[in-house]
Amino acid sequence: MGIPSQVRIVEVGPRDGLQNEATPVSVAARVAFVEALVAAGLTTVEAGSFVSPKWVPQMAGTDQVLAALPARPGVWFPVLAPNMQGFLAAQAAGAQEIAVFGAASETFSKRNTNCTIAESLERFRPVCEAAAAAGIRVRGYVSCVLGCPYEGEVPVSKVVEVAGALAAMGCYEISLGDTIGVGTPLKSRAMLEAVAGVVPMERLAVHFHDTYGQALANILACLEAGVSVIDAAAGGLGGCPYAAGASGNVATEDLVYMLDGMGVTSGVSLDGVLAAARLITAELGSEPRSRLSKARPAIQG
Amino acid sequence: MGIPSQVRIVEVGPRDGLQNEATPVSVAARVAFVEALVAAGLTTVEAGSFVSPKWVPQMAGTDQVLAALPARPGVWFPVLAPNMQGFLAAQAAGAQEIAVFGAASETFSKRNTNCTIAESLERFRPVCEAAAAAGIRVRGYVSCVLGCPYEGEVPVSKVVEVAGALAAMGCYEISLGDTIGVGTPLKSRAMLEAVAGVVPMERLAVHFHDTYGQALANILACLEAGVSVIDAAAGGLGGCPYAAGASGNVATEDLVYMLDGMGVTSGVSLDGVLAAARLITAELGSEPRSRLSKARPAIQG
Repeated sequence: MGIPSQVRIVEVGPRDGLQNEATPVSVAARVAFVEALVAAGLTTVEAGSFVSPKWVPQMAGTDQVLAALPARPGVWFPVLAPNMQGFLAAQAAGAQEIAVFGAASETFSKRNTNCTIAESLERFRPVCEAAAAAGIRVRGYVSCVLGCPYEGEVPVSKVVEVAGALAAMGCYEISLGDTIGVGTPLKSRAMLEAVAGVVPMERLAVHFHDTYGQALANILACLEAGVSVIDAAAGGLGGCPYAAGASGNVATEDLVYMLDGMGVTSGVSLDGVLAAARLITAELGSEPRSRLSKARPAIQG
Repeated sequence: MGIPSQVRIVEVGPRDGLQNEATPVSVAARVAFVEALVAAGLTTVEAGSFVSPKWVPQMAGTDQVLAALPARPGVWFPVLAPNMQGFLAAQAAGAQEIAVFGAASETFSKRNTNCTIAESLERFRPVCEAAAAAGIRVRGYVSCVLGCPYEGEVPVSKVVEVAGALAAMGCYEISLGDTIGVGTPLKSRAMLEAVAGVVPMERLAVHFHDTYGQALANILACLEAGVSVIDAAAGGLGGCPYAAGASGNVATEDLVYMLDGMGVTSGVSLDGVLAAARLITAELGSEPRSRLSKARPAIQG
């Protein structure tokens, strides 16, 4: 297909990133982080999650985060809503877009959400219907698309099945997630192409974690297959709950560096993302995990 | 051309890696590092450099390193020999292969070796002739192939010219080095393909630094163009003298992980390289910079 001339980056730092950092960050800091990302040119910024703060304290107050973000044309702040209860809370908070999170691994589904894959899909169905009725967009995630921390290899056919089910339910976009970062380029591309057999490539996104340093190479392989939506997290936020000390999501700034160098338009400012990454990692008491941040150290005041 | 089914990894950790680490390491530790790399399956391990220890104290005693390494069929220990004096010292130490180090950037050549590119090539000519007469192989490096710390962009035509000159002089292989790690995939591949117009692809190697996190993606792009020799350094040794704190060479273990996942044979054991990387970084008082090392922490004794 050839590499697209333009891609959209979906920034997942404020949700997938912060949710997997040990230190909870205040609502004010999360709002400042999202605003810095929007200022950097990102038009889709996952802003939080409507799950119980008992399980995910890092996402507490997502309603306040949404309330603090003024609506802007062409800018979306999806929030995770795993079930009807989460959806109603998201709707009450004024969400214009939600995300549901399925898995391609049966064991991961059971351990992560305490239900089978089939049960999780049945749980999403009324959420998608209610969202459609309310004019709220739904993004679908499929996790463990290239491997599972419990099962190891995950059959591509399972990824295709779950992605197809989410698309049929009305998800406008399906994000294919290498949750534990074990994927390599050719397997990543083959998986993407298999899914594109049932869901059009324009509705697919790829979501890589950099646990084994493969994220950018995998993204390149998928760009060559024609994908044009890429998830990333400023500062490489996130870590991996299944490999202590390991890297998190691919860093938005490393991705933007690659896209800029390839002449692929993303509309995102490298310096802007780096500033956002430094802002939030200062809150976390850490530093951005990107290579770029180390190559371009912050100017000391 | 399609990705080759088999590649050779040239391990440069004991030279390009250690030479750019602040802490000099003893001869005994360097020998142990090289032996660990050979045990991991690497068949070309750059063992040191015959330059003045006044300028590069990290490479002092390269003659002793070579003396401590028994000859093994099919295993090569190239050493850098920048001029006739270095060549004679390498020959006296029993080197079977040497390397010469040219640049595609005029300013870099002047600052790094105090001569123009043309002068450096004239300096290599008698070295290549003497090596040929003595039955010693010569590998050629071209540095700054995708950018220069002083000049910025480097014209591909200059890379082609220098690579062609080294090949014409008798270098059996030319390694194209992104010395400062600024390259991105499409530019890397275009540069490689331009050079392959004058030097056959089978005689070309790629050498990437991970300063901006692009190394594996660049390698993937070059593999797709048919390159089958890749330089790497265990533990991502090396740093970048032009960006303090930045990453060094692409980590051999991250590369092997990618190749294994793609079904490309390298003959190198992932666990073996990781062990070698931990051995040498313990000497340096640091830790491997690879993503793999963080994803698979050492088992505490």
